[in-house]
Amino acid sequence: MAGWDQFMTERDREHNEARGKKEPFGFGTKPALIMIDFYYGALGLTRQPLMEQIKTHPGGMGLEGWAAVDQAAILLEAARKNGIPVVHVTKLDRDNAVGWAKRVARKRQSDASDAKLSDELKARSAEIVAEVAPLEHELILRKAAPSAFNGTILPHMLQSWGIDTLIACGESTSGCVRATVVDGTTHSFKMGVVEECTFDRTEMSHWVNLFDLDAKYADVVKLAGAIAYFEQVGSAAAAAAASV
Amino acid sequence: MAGWDQFMTERDREHNEARGKKEPFGFGTKPALIMIDFYYGALGLTRQPLMEQIKTHPGGMGLEGWAAVDQAAILLEAARKNGIPVVHVTKLDRDNAVGWAKRVARKRQSDASDAKLSDELKARSAEIVAEVAPLEHELILRKAAPSAFNGTILPHMLQSWGIDTLIACGESTSGCVRATVVDGTTHSFKMGVVEECTFDRTEMSHWVNLFDLDAKYADVVKLAGAIAYFEQVGSAAAAAAASV
Amino acid sequence: MAGWDQFMTERDREHNEARGKKEPFGFGTKPALIMIDFYYGALGLTRQPLMEQIKTHPGGMGLEGWAAVDQAAILLEAARKNGIPVVHVTKLDRDNAVGWAKRVARKRQSDASDAKLSDELKARSAEIVAEVAPLEHELILRKAAPSAFNGTILPHMLQSWGIDTLIACGESTSGCVRATVVDGTTHSFKMGVVEECTFDRTEMSHWVNLFDLDAKYADVVKLAGAIAYFEQVGSAAAAAAASV
Amino acid sequence: MAGWDQFMTERDREHNEARGKKEPFGFGTKPALIMIDFYYGALGLTRQPLMEQIKTHPGGMGLEGWAAVDQAAILLEAARKNGIPVVHVTKLDRDNAVGWAKRVARKRQSDASDAKLSDELKARSAEIVAEVAPLEHELILRKAAPSAFNGTILPHMLQSWGIDTLIACGESTSGCVRATVVDGTTHSFKMGVVEECTFDRTEMSHWVNLFDLDAKYADVVKLAGAIAYFEQVGSAAAAAAASV
Repeated sequence: MAGWDQFMTERDREHNEARGKKEPFGFGTKPALIMIDFYYGALGLTRQPLMEQIKTHPGGMGLEGWAAVDQAAILLEAARKNGIPVVHVTKLDRDNAVGWAKRVARKRQSDASDAKLSDELKARSAEIVAEVAPLEHELILRKAAPSAFNGTILPHMLQSWGIDTLIACGESTSGCVRATVVDGTTHSFKMGVVEECTFDRTEMSHWVNLFDLDAKYADVVKLAGAIAYFEQVGSAAAAAAASV
Repeated sequence: MAGWDQFMTERDREHNEARGKKEPFGFGTKPALIMIDFYYGALGLTRQPLMEQIKTHPGGMGLEGWAAVDQAAILLEAARKNGIPVVHVTKLDRDNAVGWAKRVARKRQSDASDAKLSDELKARSAEIVAEVAPLEHELILRKAAPSAFNGTILPHMLQSWGIDTLIACGESTSGCVRATVVDGTTHSFKMGVVEECTFDRTEMSHWVNLFDLDAKYADVVKLAGAIAYFEQVGSAAAAAAASV
Repeated sequence: MAGWDQFMTERDREHNEARGKKEPFGFGTKPALIMIDFYYGALGLTRQPLMEQIKTHPGGMGLEGWAAVDQAAILLEAARKNGIPVVHVTKLDRDNAVGWAKRVARKRQSDASDAKLSDELKARSAEIVAEVAPLEHELILRKAAPSAFNGTILPHMLQSWGIDTLIACGESTSGCVRATVVDGTTHSFKMGVVEECTFDRTEMSHWVNLFDLDAKYADVVKLAGAIAYFEQVGSAAAAAAASV
Repeated sequence: MAGWDQFMTERDREHNEARGKKEPFGFGTKPALIMIDFYYGALGLTRQPLMEQIKTHPGGMGLEGWAAVDQAAILLEAARKNGIPVVHVTKLDRDNAVGWAKRVARKRQSDASDAKLSDELKARSAEIVAEVAPLEHELILRKAAPSAFNGTILPHMLQSWGIDTLIACGESTSGCVRATVVDGTTHSFKMGVVEECTFDRTEMSHWVNLFDLDAKYADVVKLAGAIAYFEQVGSAAAAAAASV
């Protein structure tokens, strides 16, 4: 049973069954891993339960976020070990570069929320958490839009590297992960989303967005499946190198 | 109580309450109406319940779709009466122009689904249903991506017309409506979604996507509210014209 | 000697010589042909010399345009014979769809210029000239920007077709051809421009833009070279089909 | 007489005269200044004549580049004094971020050219020259395409700031300046190019691109005119602030 089943209505279940088991889109031979918005501004500087965290950090993601970070660290390690290029995405970090959230924000609520943040959290908001910190040679993109494809060099880099498949994780499932996956499909990349490494502050949104992405744009896979795929790609590359 | 409340977990309700009532983004003074994908290929040539329809039209949207069409016809009439520009969006209609769904499709399932369609439905798939058919002078966009902003002249036209607000409706809530609203916000338009005029084949996806859009990107409004807004814009324009 | 040599200053010649003969970018194995803006609004309804034509058609391109049309008809025939996909580009043809020229126009001059046009020329302005008219199955794009990549499905179609090389011709060398070639390179396509099939109303602009494109973004080739390339691609495809 | 006149053919002159003096596009009330690619990788670490410089720095721009830098420093000062937002554009500075030039490059020539560069020039290639160095609060964009609008947050920032006019300068006239101006017009900004602050390694390309830009997309203005415009905008802002 999938995590999203609990949210289906009776009619949804009936409809879903009548349409039959989904055929996977499938992955290609040249993937990259994209780590979306694992920054302190979403996770907080310490690990706290959601309902505790929101008292001083209204936009926080709670312990589910940190659980996903720990799983994502394993995924990241597997990518690095198998030579899969890694792209880290975070938000803009300067006052003169205004992200989409500020452009369209509910200003009163946004200001009230900001007022509760500690100075350290404000200062380190765009910093990627230590558990999945980028290596020196890895690409870091700072975006001003929900999608990592908008206003960044991501499409150019994927094209330069010959990438055909993009494996995504991070937060939020219903925000930047979703927007990035939709744009990835639009750009004709084969898209994957790793369930345990993806998170949201709203449970129904997390699961229903995974359902939507799986239904229309991507294969939602388990961590073990993503690692097995990276290992298969790594082995094929090693075999090709050996045969030269 | 909002339609999405029934899908929330206990924790979601608690979290939502703690964050407080949402401040509206608000609308501007120069709106356009965008009617997304009201074509026979989604609605079917006749009005049938979803579970009946999918026997011969697996991608159909059921009676909820037609209910939304009838509401959208009222919205459309209000836009026209008040001088609000209308943009109609549909899919590509020629074999040589391949939409995103064909590019990434689960081919086996997609072919099986197509095989069930009547010849007339195939031939008229991209045709906008009579109830909300475009007028001669209204802009029609054919898109190859989920978002109406991608690969179309929509951003140029909205800019030319001086539009600051885009009121969206159509289908599916979790597909092209969502993708278009996210891109609209990214382009810094004030976005609205009209609840009764928007539809999806999955009930949980319909409501949870409306929740997500309202939480992050748009004001989800009732039909009556959208009409009142159009009338207010129309009256202001009439008053401005009279005072010249 | 290249056509652009006559426009070089002494220093340009010295500099060019010191930098040495250019290495071609090279073409790939899967080209498409893009025919840019061969419409009556640029060429006129009859063949007239430039200085004659501008009396009643200030934006006209003169006999050089028609010479390029005749060469382009040969190129088009070679593409069709060898199974090379063809994309035709023209401008928007409806009053509600405003191209970039109208958006930014020098309005007074543009209106004065339009006032001189015959009704038939206005009505047929966006129509592609008979000599290189599209076949039923060929893709036609209507653009609202100088570049054929902006606000059209071109990138999606090229991706769907597996295109790696885009051979461009049409008008004007210093306008839509140039903008399209720059965007094609930005999208990482190998770009070619066919000299005899490309034209401009200003001679220096024609030649210096060909120089610029050849220096930075594309291989500028002769018609004979482009045809030989199409034939080589066609033969390879025929051989591959025969060997199956 | 304009600088481009010397490159016109007899026919061009006749044609140009028959079409009449150009009406300016005009500027708006809320400009930004964009400083394009004033980096050491184009200018060199010391001021050398072009034909001397290319011996060790084949892509260098010669003394004309440095003359433009000195004029641009004056323009930059005027922008800052009058509260005009400034955007600096440079290239990518990391090995993992591959600009368009590397993607499409004539690899043999590009490698041969790189081999001649000093280690210091390589290390500081993307650094903006001291004469027009960004201030701490000014926006710096690193681009992977000829146009500063492609793959950057530029369109979002201009929109956030309410900019209607973009005054451009830098290098090369026939490369990134041109591509940026074309995209700016496509995005419906009023575009200006400052003649003395713009440069190219090829004289004919410099002047003919200025002609093309002025003919189709932008108003090419003198430094004194750009400064007067900035001062007028600054005075209007000061007067508005005083009247509050």
